[in-house]
Amino acid sequence: MVKLSELQKFLVDKAIIFPTAEMYGSFAGFFDYGPLGVEMKRAVKNEWWNHFVRGRSDTVGMDGSIITHPKVWEASGHVDAFHDPLVECKKCKTRTRADHLIEDRLKITAEGMELKDVATLIREHDLTCPKCGSHDLIDPRYFELMFSTEVGAVEGNIAYLRPETAQLIFVDFPRIYKASRGSLPFGIAQIGKAFRNEISPRNFVFRAREFEQMEIEYFFNPETRIELKPNDTKVNVLTRDAQDKGESHTPLKISSLVNFTSEWHVYWISEVWNFLMKIGLRPENLRLRQHTKEELSHYAQDTWDVDYLFPFGWKEMIGMANRSDFDLKQHAKHSGDELKVLDGDKKIYPWVMEPSFGVDRLIMALLSDAWYIDKDSKDKRQVLRLNPKIAPIQIGVFPLVNKEGMDTAAWEIYLELSKHFRAFYDSKGSIGRRYRRQDSIGTPYCITIDGDTLKDKTVTLRERDSMDQKRIKIRSIGTKISESF
Amino acid sequence: MVKLSELQKFLVDKAIIFPTAEMYGSFAGFFDYGPLGVEMKRAVKNEWWNHFVRGRSDTVGMDGSIITHPKVWEASGHVDAFHDPLVECKKCKTRTRADHLIEDRLKITAEGMELKDVATLIREHDLTCPKCGSHDLIDPRYFELMFSTEVGAVEGNIAYLRPETAQLIFVDFPRIYKASRGSLPFGIAQIGKAFRNEISPRNFVFRAREFEQMEIEYFFNPETRIELKPNDTKVNVLTRDAQDKGESHTPLKISSLVNFTSEWHVYWISEVWNFLMKIGLRPENLRLRQHTKEELSHYAQDTWDVDYLFPFGWKEMIGMANRSDFDLKQHAKHSGDELKVLDGDKKIYPWVMEPSFGVDRLIMALLSDAWYIDKDSKDKRQVLRLNPKIAPIQIGVFPLVNKEGMDTAAWEIYLELSKHFRAFYDSKGSIGRRYRRQDSIGTPYCITIDGDTLKDKTVTLRERDSMDQKRIKIRSIGTKISESF
Repeated sequence: MVKLSELQKFLVDKAIIFPTAEMYGSFAGFFDYGPLGVEMKRAVKNEWWNHFVRGRSDTVGMDGSIITHPKVWEASGHVDAFHDPLVECKKCKTRTRADHLIEDRLKITAEGMELKDVATLIREHDLTCPKCGSHDLIDPRYFELMFSTEVGAVEGNIAYLRPETAQLIFVDFPRIYKASRGSLPFGIAQIGKAFRNEISPRNFVFRAREFEQMEIEYFFNPETRIELKPNDTKVNVLTRDAQDKGESHTPLKISSLVNFTSEWHVYWISEVWNFLMKIGLRPENLRLRQHTKEELSHYAQDTWDVDYLFPFGWKEMIGMANRSDFDLKQHAKHSGDELKVLDGDKKIYPWVMEPSFGVDRLIMALLSDAWYIDKDSKDKRQVLRLNPKIAPIQIGVFPLVNKEGMDTAAWEIYLELSKHFRAFYDSKGSIGRRYRRQDSIGTPYCITIDGDTLKDKTVTLRERDSMDQKRIKIRSIGTKISESF
Repeated sequence: MVKLSELQKFLVDKAIIFPTAEMYGSFAGFFDYGPLGVEMKRAVKNEWWNHFVRGRSDTVGMDGSIITHPKVWEASGHVDAFHDPLVECKKCKTRTRADHLIEDRLKITAEGMELKDVATLIREHDLTCPKCGSHDLIDPRYFELMFSTEVGAVEGNIAYLRPETAQLIFVDFPRIYKASRGSLPFGIAQIGKAFRNEISPRNFVFRAREFEQMEIEYFFNPETRIELKPNDTKVNVLTRDAQDKGESHTPLKISSLVNFTSEWHVYWISEVWNFLMKIGLRPENLRLRQHTKEELSHYAQDTWDVDYLFPFGWKEMIGMANRSDFDLKQHAKHSGDELKVLDGDKKIYPWVMEPSFGVDRLIMALLSDAWYIDKDSKDKRQVLRLNPKIAPIQIGVFPLVNKEGMDTAAWEIYLELSKHFRAFYDSKGSIGRRYRRQDSIGTPYCITIDGDTLKDKTVTLRERDSMDQKRIKIRSIGTKISESF
């Protein structure tokens, strides 16, 4: 598997993803996407939107405000309870996330642990400052994770940068449901930035302070059954029970998950899995993990994560929570509005299933997954084996030499292909080097225009993974590429 | 022309664009896009990206951080000089933008006027509080437009929410230019949110506190000439001279603008104009306005706006500034980095042309432009005559009745069309009412599946603007729609 430092160096060198404001010493937890990164991110987001919004007749999209009304976060519980335990070193003043300190030193899960338990563990094990090694740590306290700002010309008018896109959906649900003439089940999807003032951002974009989410809130009547199609796909599963017994994940059929959770939950696990397969993630690097009783959020009936085997271990990439009617009831209480909807003859608070994707985490997983060094090749060929749908560049167009009309012909082909694909024209250096350059950034196809092109309207099509080269007609390039999607 | 209040009511009722957090009394200057709004916005942004990034071999994309390093804004001049004049009423404490107060009362342009001149005008004309009418106004002072927040666990670590996407491009220019093996001219494009703490947000999303931009920074060598293609398109032009003489705009050929500004500027005016025509804006509602000497920003050699005739008058929708080498030199000075690039044999600071689009303003212009009430029709048919490329829904699919296999056939056609278009299935109400509903939200085509469909594989295709109905084969629907794009 690729090392984090190696992947990170590659991403920064190629300007795929890199720290923001590098010339000013960068800014911990904030990143910019360059030309290749932004194309890949756009492609992933489009695939997601096409799959979950355009591809579903029961789901619509929205795009909410980032700076948000403080009452939204009072109702959701974030103002009172969205914080991490912070421990400060008396000597060097370094501030560290206390649960991460415990996890690193004691190798136990401490996320979501109560403050007093965190304090006890630090004291009992005499944990030291990760920076200076001092034993003199101030007792942990809570640190607010929401960024705040002041709005308007009157002072003290606090607002928050949304720490998740989800709440915007709940607050807009009544208007959208009505205007869409909705009926249950009904999904609302949103893609957008969210912000958390992490005490110690780490693992590159994995735990950043600014990140992007793709979320669906799927409103349903829990008393209505959903008919599940049989699904014999086997996936790595780590149930709550297995974790309690200290066991590791085991392959199970998706259909069999009804033994562990609700049918609505299994339905969404299956839908999310289909999407991950579609964009080309490898099942062996994925696992489904059910939250333990201790870590379940206050709003969740049950939660299943899709973990990915990142260079730094199994970590959450996607969360799928059953939020019940918690949020709508909270907002009804805080706003005084009636948020029930009519289902059949009955007014009810719908329940909500929430598939929530971290875009940057997904990108990072796709990149680690695709990372490949061809050890059999003389020059240790580096290849990103990305699915053609999400590759930053889908086709490279090369004139063999820049003369005898080959460059003109190549340019025309490039212009035509650009209308349908993310195409790139490269006329510099040897053909071999041009192939290698495209291999390393994941371009699935390259075509070379040579002397014969002008005679018989054919080009050489070269495939990234197999390195096979074939002679094909110019007019069939488009079809050939589309077929591989 | 549509009235602002009428357009606004329509947008809110249909959940296209509406105030955020309505159940908590909303939040001035912040808006959410609902299902139809987000589809239209996505379509406009995609058209822009395809036109200016994928459609140009000299331009690449990026996506920068929203929360940004404070030094970026010190170098750019925003920390010192990005503010509006604020006037406060001693009696009712209402705070108002002083230049807007002057514009409203005295009907003169006051944007960018110096603070002392603003104060003099208010005093001399004895302007009163717009809320309570009191004559007792406190002398105007500057009010910071950037939103700030604190980052990290250490207090006092101020950062800013970017007030424009542009500076991120300048700061990332060295890494992106190098990784892209760039040569001049070279464009970097970005789409994303920006934030300004407006004292008095107004005109719906036109002057909001959170908004979206589409910007290109196009780096070029000012000593290199660009060969302009002749362009005989006539556009409404209001030059600096004409404004000085108190004249109004007059139709001029784009090519003739070389008499008023640089060739690079004319090139970009022409490129931007092409895009606006492509997405279907009407030239009679557009004008090019050159900034006067007084209003030119400190960084700009020359600036041309595309103004749109909004329901509240001619207002800026797009700005095209020639920023010269101002920004790169500022960042070189503040960071100590060398930001020159090699052009030919010479190291130079490239100059920059900046076409900058306000997404929300463009959406609002497209919607006002498309607004149409068919006064000849009995029921005063309301139609949004949007270009099919950017219509939220591109095709409505209706079964005539929900029986005799028509619903099943319609559903199958809907599923197939969904793969290629933004399709919508509607089986409720009379066909006439279903047409009207789609007309009002701008759907260019509807098809109806009836008894004959099952026999001869044809449907009725109905066009929004002409209301023509034609019988066509199911298999030719896709081609028919695509052709109209």
